[in-house]
Amino acid sequence: MSGKLVIQTDFGLQDGAVNAMYGVAYQVDAALSITDLTHEITPFDIHDASYRLLQSVSYWPKETVFVSVVDPGVGSKRRSVVALLTSGQYIITPDNGTLTYVKNAIGIKEVREINEETQRLAGSSDSHTFHGRDVYMYNGARLASKKITFENLGTLVSPESISTFPLNPPTQKETLIEGTIDILDIRFGSLWTNIPLDFLKNWNVQYGDIFQVDIYEKEVLRYQQQVTFGRSFAQVKPHEPVLYINSLLNIGLGLNLGSFASTYHIETGTDWKIIIKKENLS
Amino acid sequence: MSGKLVIQTDFGLQDGAVNAMYGVAYQVDAALSITDLTHEITPFDIHDASYRLLQSVSYWPKETVFVSVVDPGVGSKRRSVVALLTSGQYIITPDNGTLTYVKNAIGIKEVREINEETQRLAGSSDSHTFHGRDVYMYNGARLASKKITFENLGTLVSPESISTFPLNPPTQKETLIEGTIDILDIRFGSLWTNIPLDFLKNWNVQYGDIFQVDIYEKEVLRYQQQVTFGRSFAQVKPHEPVLYINSLLNIGLGLNLGSFASTYHIETGTDWKIIIKKENLS
Amino acid sequence: MSGKLVIQTDFGLQDGAVNAMYGVAYQVDAALSITDLTHEITPFDIHDASYRLLQSVSYWPKETVFVSVVDPGVGSKRRSVVALLTSGQYIITPDNGTLTYVKNAIGIKEVREINEETQRLAGSSDSHTFHGRDVYMYNGARLASKKITFENLGTLVSPESISTFPLNPPTQKETLIEGTIDILDIRFGSLWTNIPLDFLKNWNVQYGDIFQVDIYEKEVLRYQQQVTFGRSFAQVKPHEPVLYINSLLNIGLGLNLGSFASTYHIETGTDWKIIIKKENLS
Repeated sequence: MSGKLVIQTDFGLQDGAVNAMYGVAYQVDAALSITDLTHEITPFDIHDASYRLLQSVSYWPKETVFVSVVDPGVGSKRRSVVALLTSGQYIITPDNGTLTYVKNAIGIKEVREINEETQRLAGSSDSHTFHGRDVYMYNGARLASKKITFENLGTLVSPESISTFPLNPPTQKETLIEGTIDILDIRFGSLWTNIPLDFLKNWNVQYGDIFQVDIYEKEVLRYQQQVTFGRSFAQVKPHEPVLYINSLLNIGLGLNLGSFASTYHIETGTDWKIIIKKENLS
Repeated sequence: MSGKLVIQTDFGLQDGAVNAMYGVAYQVDAALSITDLTHEITPFDIHDASYRLLQSVSYWPKETVFVSVVDPGVGSKRRSVVALLTSGQYIITPDNGTLTYVKNAIGIKEVREINEETQRLAGSSDSHTFHGRDVYMYNGARLASKKITFENLGTLVSPESISTFPLNPPTQKETLIEGTIDILDIRFGSLWTNIPLDFLKNWNVQYGDIFQVDIYEKEVLRYQQQVTFGRSFAQVKPHEPVLYINSLLNIGLGLNLGSFASTYHIETGTDWKIIIKKENLS
Repeated sequence: MSGKLVIQTDFGLQDGAVNAMYGVAYQVDAALSITDLTHEITPFDIHDASYRLLQSVSYWPKETVFVSVVDPGVGSKRRSVVALLTSGQYIITPDNGTLTYVKNAIGIKEVREINEETQRLAGSSDSHTFHGRDVYMYNGARLASKKITFENLGTLVSPESISTFPLNPPTQKETLIEGTIDILDIRFGSLWTNIPLDFLKNWNVQYGDIFQVDIYEKEVLRYQQQVTFGRSFAQVKPHEPVLYINSLLNIGLGLNLGSFASTYHIETGTDWKIIIKKENLS
């Protein structure tokens, strides 16, 4: 059996761009197994591209090759790299911050820089605006199908040299946890924070415990309420809020059968801070 | 060759959730063949999830495993089940009404209840909000790849115990047929009724015959017009209405090159009744 | 290994229609490799269906079978055909203009007409509104899996008899190039013209050269500005316009990190003319 290739872009699926990428990969090796991560990343949104990789990459077999193309600097001097994660998968991407979350949460073992001029689809040298097809997918297919080794795909560079955007680590005090709202569970409108399950374990929290939750946009209080910690949404009544452990084992905040984000107009990013207060020590 | 797995959810494709499900399945068996049914079910819309299964399941080879995850009660005590249809395919789903249409129109041969605590992805026991990944896809992959048998996947329960929502059967009198508008052909705006082709055959209907069509929302008349029964949309002029046999061999009502539903503000569900009157017996 | 099948429709992915097509194909040959081109073609938009095939088909291995179903005339007397391109891929489609761009830019070697009554899914003869499933996909799967040969799939007809819509060829004078805006790079809002790279090569254009660009809707001037010819978007400052070579090696016009089409309200089609003027011969 041939290798596994997974693609993520901000190209959408309305035109033929992603399909041309598939064609290029199958020309490299017709037996490849190719899967979409998502193509609905908001154009140029490197933050979300980085998060969606974190959400999925570690569930895949070792040696799976991820190709992520959210590339506002296509054709500029930004590097093209291939990273080997400590969990054993590869990611090929422009070096523009896309690797931030996996570097922080999973770890990068080795990174190589790909030479875009020599390592590209034959006959594609007149086009400089579709590296997703001509560079990233082409090389992803070669690596996944073992037509080229990781070692021969590029020149070793330091993992410390990888571009990243800043992440604010969550903090825990005796009765207060502070974190940020990283991203939404888009379809259902729940908030996903950067606060790990372990913080609640430190407090010996039980299902049914109640906490005060404050949400600030910069210094402005946007939400304040008592919220139950539940095993799942079903622990609270319809349209009531619930703190829960999300599928990445971080703390989430949602409404049972409703959208927390649209109900309370909450957005995401480092401007959005969440504070969880333990009122009564038991 | 390994087995076939088909997935349906209300998760959308904007984030990494569905892709993590794929990764889990390939960890079970890298040779699986996985296809999306749709991930665009409106969140929590069990009716449409049930209908979309009916629309596609019987076109697939026997032993294909469908995984359907529209699960407003995730983490509650609702059962997780695997059903073997009389047509030979399997469906793994929360037992929340999703099986209604296939039970009614195809038939269920056997149902087993899956133990969510013992039959789940290793290491997933801290997460109770993504059974799509940790329970349904994991078990779907095991069944499709024959790593586990249907018999060993769960405990036999009675098909009669399966949760269903009510369906109003269509009725036929000498000159009048009455049915409901089950669902839209979304992209084209045609109405799909629950009235089978056989009812028209009983009347010896010919292409070109004209019928009076009334549509009621509860007791309020919302549409009344003479409509031609056509072989296809092309039988009538652009923007004229046509009664036709849809791809499930039920009666549809559409506008040639237009959207019936948006033109006449027609919706779906048991509140929406359609009456077809045969004016002149030939 | 079995063959490759690629599908394009205007059905969307919200219901079970496309999935039923997959099931039919796998019933023909469970080992087929099937990929979506796009299902988001605007309903009945034959122009865009034709363009999206051009955008992707030549990147695929020879003998790949494309099935394109944008079929406003389903059930009418329009022909169903299978075309063998000079580049070696097949396209199965209603003969309604869908082959226009590939005929013009790639070339058609041979065309055969498929008999819809005899060459269709067994048991589907009561349905006349889903030829995508019952005729096109079924025959695409048979051809891709070599269960039937191209020769036996239909009767030879003349490539000249194929339905096409008119295309206005671009023109080049000593200091002026004129073309049309064929389509958008939808997600990013860039304009794709029908003017080939060769026209700029004839002028010995260098990256950084500046041209006057006029855009007319019929006789009305809708845009006029000096625009830099860049290697890629990154050649100009954010939100500045850039002429560039797109991924099909035609001239594109975009805004770096912005949407040209929505910023300047530019649309596509033969009413939209673009004129590029070379001001100073160097």
